[in-house]
Amino acid sequence: MFNECPCGITGPKGFYAAGVHCGVKKVKKDLSLVFSEKPAHGAGVFTTNKVPAAPVLVDKHQLDRSPSFRAILVNSGNANACTGERGLNDAWVMVKETALTLGITEHDVLISSTGVIGQYLPMEGICSGIREAVSMLDVDGHTAAAEAIMTTDKFSKELAIQVTLDGVTVTLGGMAKGSGMIAPNMATMLAFVTSDVDISQELLQHSLKQAADRSFNRISVDGDTSTNDMVLILANGLAGNSKLTNKDDPSYQLFYEALEYLLVRLSKMIVVDGEGATKFVEINVTDAATEAEAVQAAKAIANSNLVKTAIHGEDANWGRILAAVGYSGIDFNPEEVEIFFNDVPILRKHYAIDFSEEDAKRVLQRKEIKITVCLNQGTASASFWTCDLSKDYVAINANYRT
Amino acid sequence: MFNECPCGITGPKGFYAAGVHCGVKKVKKDLSLVFSEKPAHGAGVFTTNKVPAAPVLVDKHQLDRSPSFRAILVNSGNANACTGERGLNDAWVMVKETALTLGITEHDVLISSTGVIGQYLPMEGICSGIREAVSMLDVDGHTAAAEAIMTTDKFSKELAIQVTLDGVTVTLGGMAKGSGMIAPNMATMLAFVTSDVDISQELLQHSLKQAADRSFNRISVDGDTSTNDMVLILANGLAGNSKLTNKDDPSYQLFYEALEYLLVRLSKMIVVDGEGATKFVEINVTDAATEAEAVQAAKAIANSNLVKTAIHGEDANWGRILAAVGYSGIDFNPEEVEIFFNDVPILRKHYAIDFSEEDAKRVLQRKEIKITVCLNQGTASASFWTCDLSKDYVAINANYRT
Repeated sequence: MFNECPCGITGPKGFYAAGVHCGVKKVKKDLSLVFSEKPAHGAGVFTTNKVPAAPVLVDKHQLDRSPSFRAILVNSGNANACTGERGLNDAWVMVKETALTLGITEHDVLISSTGVIGQYLPMEGICSGIREAVSMLDVDGHTAAAEAIMTTDKFSKELAIQVTLDGVTVTLGGMAKGSGMIAPNMATMLAFVTSDVDISQELLQHSLKQAADRSFNRISVDGDTSTNDMVLILANGLAGNSKLTNKDDPSYQLFYEALEYLLVRLSKMIVVDGEGATKFVEINVTDAATEAEAVQAAKAIANSNLVKTAIHGEDANWGRILAAVGYSGIDFNPEEVEIFFNDVPILRKHYAIDFSEEDAKRVLQRKEIKITVCLNQGTASASFWTCDLSKDYVAINANYRT
Repeated sequence: MFNECPCGITGPKGFYAAGVHCGVKKVKKDLSLVFSEKPAHGAGVFTTNKVPAAPVLVDKHQLDRSPSFRAILVNSGNANACTGERGLNDAWVMVKETALTLGITEHDVLISSTGVIGQYLPMEGICSGIREAVSMLDVDGHTAAAEAIMTTDKFSKELAIQVTLDGVTVTLGGMAKGSGMIAPNMATMLAFVTSDVDISQELLQHSLKQAADRSFNRISVDGDTSTNDMVLILANGLAGNSKLTNKDDPSYQLFYEALEYLLVRLSKMIVVDGEGATKFVEINVTDAATEAEAVQAAKAIANSNLVKTAIHGEDANWGRILAAVGYSGIDFNPEEVEIFFNDVPILRKHYAIDFSEEDAKRVLQRKEIKITVCLNQGTASASFWTCDLSKDYVAINANYRT
């Protein structure tokens, strides 16, 4: 749908990155730096956890104080969460040391952390790591930067895409980290996005919120729950497009589509990296009364351990899907529901079951499976992405039906 | 706390039971019958799933129509859920055949089903099974009855206890089934309780609702979510106590305590039977503003996969506990929170950490662990019961901190 470049967060013009080891982790890279040669508009979405980590507090403060930024510093291996006054001081030291070393102001720096909760950061290592990272900033630093934000991830997640706005090429780059665990309820999800698009800060914030709701908030990593979850974006305007300031501008809409595409792609990489995952599952709920209800139903299905074990066992146990919609909290008529696995109809209206186990099995044996639940209630729809649930946990449930 | 009798659902006077194999399952017992020689007041609590199974619809109808009952018939292996008109007819046939065979009226019978969703019951087998079960009704039939309601359970769950009300011995008996899976979000939980207490139907319903909220709704089997969940109680008055009709009567309060104790014991058996469970965990949230908030926080901790993997790994990762409270939705000040493992203080106010890893490890190595989270907000408290999360699912998370 969009041109992909063999690059990540440094794909857009004027961005440089580095990833180094500074001693939070034993051996692996643990400090990531992204730098824009020109002040960039910044925006962010954050966890709603009542115990926000220190970097979340710092970034909210920074975004309230200034619309533009030059750098994002991220450490992995330690979340700097539940660390009280001292943790907050440490977070501000990260900001100040980064500003000092880069020769920019404190207002220009955003930070992020991920890893263990309740331990203090090794600040000496962090500070010398900042100096090393600054000295290594490079257009080729994107992969090292993406590696340095990993915790239990098995592979680094990055992507850059291009979109043409009124004849001007605009690039978006991103990197993300997920968790090795399926449907974690507090494993940290971080994503950082850069673009050379010229856009107002208000519209940038609007686009990020909407795109995150339709990507990171639609995978089985619940964006509401970690102490550290955040998505940050910097847009430095170096592409030279006519500045985007209006939601109804077709160029903005094209940029938004590209942003949503990028975030959905990064979200899917997180799902594929789920612990024990052997299948990638897309849940589509269609013909719902509202988009919110479609999301609610799709999320209940995607989070159902019983649905996920049945998929792992390649068992067409549609009753578990319907029951998940039943407890999702939406109002609907179960007799009207239809269920499809890819294009194979599994359940028709009035509980009419008319599929061959062989056809269903053929779909369920694939690595990528699409489950469509048609509510026959309205015209809204939503997608959600998840993976199967495998191994011992499954033993009792996967073949329950046979 | 209460005398236990070596018995189950037939412990109370005038109750008989049987469990037989009727062909829903291949070999194991799958049809359970409980009978009271005298009409008994009946009460029930049911799933709130929007796709209720046929027996749930039938029982609600029966309880609306009549306050008294003689029999409960339960099949396992097939949930009779998502079976439409035909499933509802089959459920009524179960009622009628039971009434006919026992020589009682249709109003006298409650039914229940558990097992696979979306398949029709083998009604010939069910009907001949009913005749066999009736012929085998016996005071000694309690264990067979408890076995016949099992699905993926590894052991049958039954208990009987006695309480003295004004010098009169009253007996309560119960049997339950859970699921082999930890924290299932739709695995069926069924429980059936009998008593020879003399009590008004209104008070019986009130006591059952309250006791179920404090037992089955406080384990990681979410009572709201299956298509088939139910708890039924029959009380036939044969103990000869002065009839309980008033909530403030101390004898009623004693009966209520016994009922809650019985349901909590059955709930704990369900937790112990969790798939892969190696540790039984009690979560106590104390000094909360309200009981509802204490329950909400305790439930978030009990359902946290990351807390449960840390417990399995015997890792004192208190940050995961605090973070779970953080996303539970309650309002609180994290700096005021204190956490204990059994009697060992782990976290003090203002994030003061002052425990030896050895002491914490010593607690976490036990088979039964009590986690207390003191919110220092008010005077309310609540307990929740769960188990650890083991095996491969754990590999990435259990030792994350080290």
